[in-house]
Amino acid sequence: MQSFRQFIENYTPIPDEEWSIVSAAFQKHEFKKNELILREGEICRYFGFLEKGLLRFFVNKNGEDVTKFFTVAPYCFTSQYSFRHRVPAAENIETLEPCTAYLIGLDKADELLSLKHWADFTRKFVQEVQFHTEQLMMEAKTEDAGKRYLNLIEKYPQLIQRIPLRHLSSFLGIAPQSLSRIRKDFLKHSKKLT
Amino acid sequence: MQSFRQFIENYTPIPDEEWSIVSAAFQKHEFKKNELILREGEICRYFGFLEKGLLRFFVNKNGEDVTKFFTVAPYCFTSQYSFRHRVPAAENIETLEPCTAYLIGLDKADELLSLKHWADFTRKFVQEVQFHTEQLMMEAKTEDAGKRYLNLIEKYPQLIQRIPLRHLSSFLGIAPQSLSRIRKDFLKHSKKLT
Repeated sequence: MQSFRQFIENYTPIPDEEWSIVSAAFQKHEFKKNELILREGEICRYFGFLEKGLLRFFVNKNGEDVTKFFTVAPYCFTSQYSFRHRVPAAENIETLEPCTAYLIGLDKADELLSLKHWADFTRKFVQEVQFHTEQLMMEAKTEDAGKRYLNLIEKYPQLIQRIPLRHLSSFLGIAPQSLSRIRKDFLKHSKKLT
Repeated sequence: MQSFRQFIENYTPIPDEEWSIVSAAFQKHEFKKNELILREGEICRYFGFLEKGLLRFFVNKNGEDVTKFFTVAPYCFTSQYSFRHRVPAAENIETLEPCTAYLIGLDKADELLSLKHWADFTRKFVQEVQFHTEQLMMEAKTEDAGKRYLNLIEKYPQLIQRIPLRHLSSFLGIAPQSLSRIRKDFLKHSKKLT
């Protein structure tokens, strides 16, 4: 669980007294590959720290599976609106790999907010998520799929190998065939450069 | 400034002692219509509460003006990443109407975070913005421009009249001509229903 403390300390230092309360409030869970850990329409009961593995957030839209985004360990995750307001989630979360996560329910999460450094961490973390989401939105608006694929490779070079092509193409909003073509062009181009 | 307190209290109650500190930390500013209040490449120096008026956030992408979103009073605004990290902003903010805003700089904003209820408000507010941004991103991914126009009308019925067509169409990611067509279809359809 030390990786969770390290993760928090990327945002703000957390003194030992606070860390012992925080770490005692979370419970460790192991998930298998391809487990649906949240189903659309159910209430999301947990905020979690993903220590190991990879998650996919997706929605079902007119029978089509549309990928929202991925959470790559180490990172925190939840279906935020559902979790905070105890309403049915408008999204699914599934594991794409075996995952280790530390989870906390809403009541305990609310209690932790009285801890100064933890509250500071959650505020900064949500700000970061908000910034990333804004970037994704603007990329989708102003860049073509090829450029967005390059951005993804640049930011998460190893991720591309870990995500099935159909999810990557749905994340980029294009057909799997188009993504195959983009990948071929990219590989041809990278070979020219080396 | 009472509208600011009411706005905060939509998220969390704020006791008189805290409100007197918060309200003293913000300064009132009036902006004319079509004023560029933040320019891409400059550092955003303020977090603000927009008491009256309408703002447009936009970027310049290969010479093209692309609308990110609008802020409609009463609401808070800033170029968050630039403001918090004191780095050049990747976006512009302009007034689409005469605006009244209450502004605060980063140092004072950081001081206010020691106030329990204010800190609670900012956390909830950022969570809300994050949720809205996620919704916008997913709408752009799963809905056509016609449906997104209807969503906008439903959420902000009066807004449509206040925003020039070219900004609305750029926000929806379509040509102004396509938006004109969508509007005509919509009006024809609403007449049939009445």
